Amino acid sequence: MLEREAPMLGVLGGMGPLASAQFMLRLTLLTRAARDQDHIPALLWSDPRVPDRTASKTGGADPLPWLLRGIAGLRTAGCEAIAIPCNTAHGWYDGMSQAAGCPILHIVDATAAELARLGIAPGTPDQPRRIGVMGTAATLAMRLYQDRLNAQGYDCIVPSEAEMQSRVSPAIALVKANQVRDAYAPLAAVVESLAARGAEAVVLGCTEIPLGIQAGPYASLPVPLADTIDALARAAIRWAGRQPG
Amino acid sequence: MLEREAPMLGVLGGMGPLASAQFMLRLTLLTRAARDQDHIPALLWSDPRVPDRTASKTGGADPLPWLLRGIAGLRTAGCEAIAIPCNTAHGWYDGMSQAAGCPILHIVDATAAELARLGIAPGTPDQPRRIGVMGTAATLAMRLYQDRLNAQGYDCIVPSEAEMQSRVSPAIALVKANQVRDAYAPLAAVVESLAARGAEAVVLGCTEIPLGIQAGPYASLPVPLADTIDALARAAIRWAGRQPG
Repeated sequence: MLEREAPMLGVLGGMGPLASAQFMLRLTLLTRAARDQDHIPALLWSDPRVPDRTASKTGGADPLPWLLRGIAGLRTAGCEAIAIPCNTAHGWYDGMSQAAGCPILHIVDATAAELARLGIAPGTPDQPRRIGVMGTAATLAMRLYQDRLNAQGYDCIVPSEAEMQSRVSPAIALVKANQVRDAYAPLAAVVESLAARGAEAVVLGCTEIPLGIQAGPYASLPVPLADTIDALARAAIRWAGRQPG
Repeated sequence: MLEREAPMLGVLGGMGPLASAQFMLRLTLLTRAARDQDHIPALLWSDPRVPDRTASKTGGADPLPWLLRGIAGLRTAGCEAIAIPCNTAHGWYDGMSQAAGCPILHIVDATAAELARLGIAPGTPDQPRRIGVMGTAATLAMRLYQDRLNAQGYDCIVPSEAEMQSRVSPAIALVKANQVRDAYAPLAAVVESLAARGAEAVVLGCTEIPLGIQAGPYASLPVPLADTIDALARAAIRWAGRQPG
């Protein structure tokens, strides 16, 4: 039974809003619970006005002040840890972490745990395990996954520039515009391409990507997929000291 | 294009948490948007610790202090209107409304608009239009729908006591315990029973009910269903001055 004064999870969302709503849904469905009062108290700050994270890397407005505003709001409301269901926003992790004064669950660490759960344990420095990473252009350019996972015994490969421009980036934009079903085919094609290049699993390293992939027959894709929304939800359940359902 | 300082919607949720996550999903999917920044800024206070609303009517703890705590948190964060995706909580509407100092979108009014959208316009005092209302035992006992909709030209009929005890109440509990698929059959049976008694539409007047119904072949049910999650999401989109997608 949950204590009445269980700690509250803060969720810095809206990037995009569909992904953060899906995070709340998965946080609920993945928690073992027999009634409302067994679920994790959570506050979702869904602010889609945050300037585009990828565009900011090529001269667009800086999202950090907006991210810090959300973190301050979550902290004022009493949240004791923060999850951010947006991979690209983790490019500003250090600045957010310094301001937060509470743990921010890192989505790449959550994804490493998810890969292990899927049976894709890391390899060794001599024989790293090859995985594919899909994400926004900014996430890949900042090497959010490559640097953190390569150090743990993975060999991260990413889509080609042509695949990013013709398939991954347009598919992410389709999900943000609510055209979720149209995003499946281009995303599935890139999963298959990464698998053909030797990836034993593919990280869906932008929270719009699982939404698009799951709108089609994703179970027939050739390799396991690490859903970063689910990965972060499981990390939050662990933080709350709860059991997955 | 959305102004950077667009007003923020507060969502008092967690009752149950799956329903409020679904509200956020539907709020996003029903808004016409081409990119993240076109969506409605929203803050979801998902506090599943609020004492059970139905149990409070038979001697359980009073939920009002918990509801007011959430409203205060949403107001402190800057929310300018509040939506509550829990029908039963509207039994405390007056107390919440007095404390809020901002509009609280009433779910029954939102549902009346949804009935009109579905083509089930009200009748006349002499010839009211018969609709079925499903909800928690407390929602029906407080006559949240009956009093408000009967005054508008509807004749609300409700499930029998036996149907409530054997089907509706257990199905709501199943959804709150994440056993969503098992909730379909008992809920569908009650929709059919209300239709057989002359209901031209059925209001799914507990936000767990659409989740259960939509886990099965709901499109084959004999009458239109007014989904109170969607109804409230559309009311919020109207409040924000936005277009439905």
